[in-house]
Amino acid sequence: MNSTLILASASPRRRELLAQAGYLFEVQASSVDESRRSGEDAIRFATRLAREKAQEVFALRQSSADPTLVLGADTVVVCDGEILGKPVDAADATRMLLLLSGRTHHVVTGVAVVAGELLVEVAAEVTQVTVRTLSPQEIADYVVGGEPMDKAGAYAIQGYAARWIPRISGCYFNVVGLPLALVASLLEGVEFRLASQTIPARSLSLG
Amino acid sequence: MNSTLILASASPRRRELLAQAGYLFEVQASSVDESRRSGEDAIRFATRLAREKAQEVFALRQSSADPTLVLGADTVVVCDGEILGKPVDAADATRMLLLLSGRTHHVVTGVAVVAGELLVEVAAEVTQVTVRTLSPQEIADYVVGGEPMDKAGAYAIQGYAARWIPRISGCYFNVVGLPLALVASLLEGVEFRLASQTIPARSLSLG
Repeated sequence: MNSTLILASASPRRRELLAQAGYLFEVQASSVDESRRSGEDAIRFATRLAREKAQEVFALRQSSADPTLVLGADTVVVCDGEILGKPVDAADATRMLLLLSGRTHHVVTGVAVVAGELLVEVAAEVTQVTVRTLSPQEIADYVVGGEPMDKAGAYAIQGYAARWIPRISGCYFNVVGLPLALVASLLEGVEFRLASQTIPARSLSLG
Repeated sequence: MNSTLILASASPRRRELLAQAGYLFEVQASSVDESRRSGEDAIRFATRLAREKAQEVFALRQSSADPTLVLGADTVVVCDGEILGKPVDAADATRMLLLLSGRTHHVVTGVAVVAGELLVEVAAEVTQVTVRTLSPQEIADYVVGGEPMDKAGAYAIQGYAARWIPRISGCYFNVVGLPLALVASLLEGVEFRLASQTIPARSLSLG
């Protein structure tokens, strides 16, 4: 990869995953409004936010001399028709964990790669996650421990909640927050489109 | 848990997973012969080794005053009818990765909990893992990097190979080396049996 890769996310989990998969990148968090529009389903919501995050950071980098690829991502949990983001407080975390207990839910991550105004790739990954039945005491202890607070759906599969999750179906890294195989494939596609163009992406993005 | 938990494994991944799930434990590696008996299938092989590892370490702890639970585990990969352990050298790692490329395989971990001669619980977890097609260059670079060498099936899902694995079906932690939900359930079962006995496990094991 010859372009500079920017991860438009403040999440330490996404940073760790992208580094684990061998990518070299910079981090620049976006400041987009993360509220959901009425009638927007989980996939539309997560992919719109991913695109907005990546486009905002791409716009901030317009002045950069190097060609830039910006990666945005947003993760939500869907259970029993309800879309769960990060809990707002301990009571909200408890409510979410009670909802997930003994059920199978879906984790949806929207991913966007932006390399110019006309070079935007967006996709979503969906993973099915089964949580065993949790006792009220287990939920209370987990919430007091603090792990749920900055996680969509109020749990971290890569944390203490690991022992409560006997099975998933789909991409594991999606559940942590960044579907690595999908990201690799999107980045390869955009790199290929960049390489096969006579006009550099930077010119394209300047319109 | 009132008993001392011992992990009978030298694997740093198993140690990290068990700590992540919130367990307090000691580590004592076993020295059992890990060769497969003729005609032994993957589940029998992995569960026998898990039990032998745990029983060996339990026997070494006989003199300990505290009641002890010993956890043993063994992981193998099954692809296209072939059982893969750790590669013996770089050529063997390359051969295994060529076999896994573009295919779905199974990861089998045998788990055993030993708390006395009559208190032995054994189980196995099987997870289906899909690997995308790998180029000869990708395989060569990965083998040179050294990650495959001490891993069953010559890859680490929690490492660089993450980007090659778009989906799994089953327990993720099993693929790393220790199925945490299964381990939690076995430990709870053995603790319950210990708690409901009038004779302490230590006396049983000396019987």
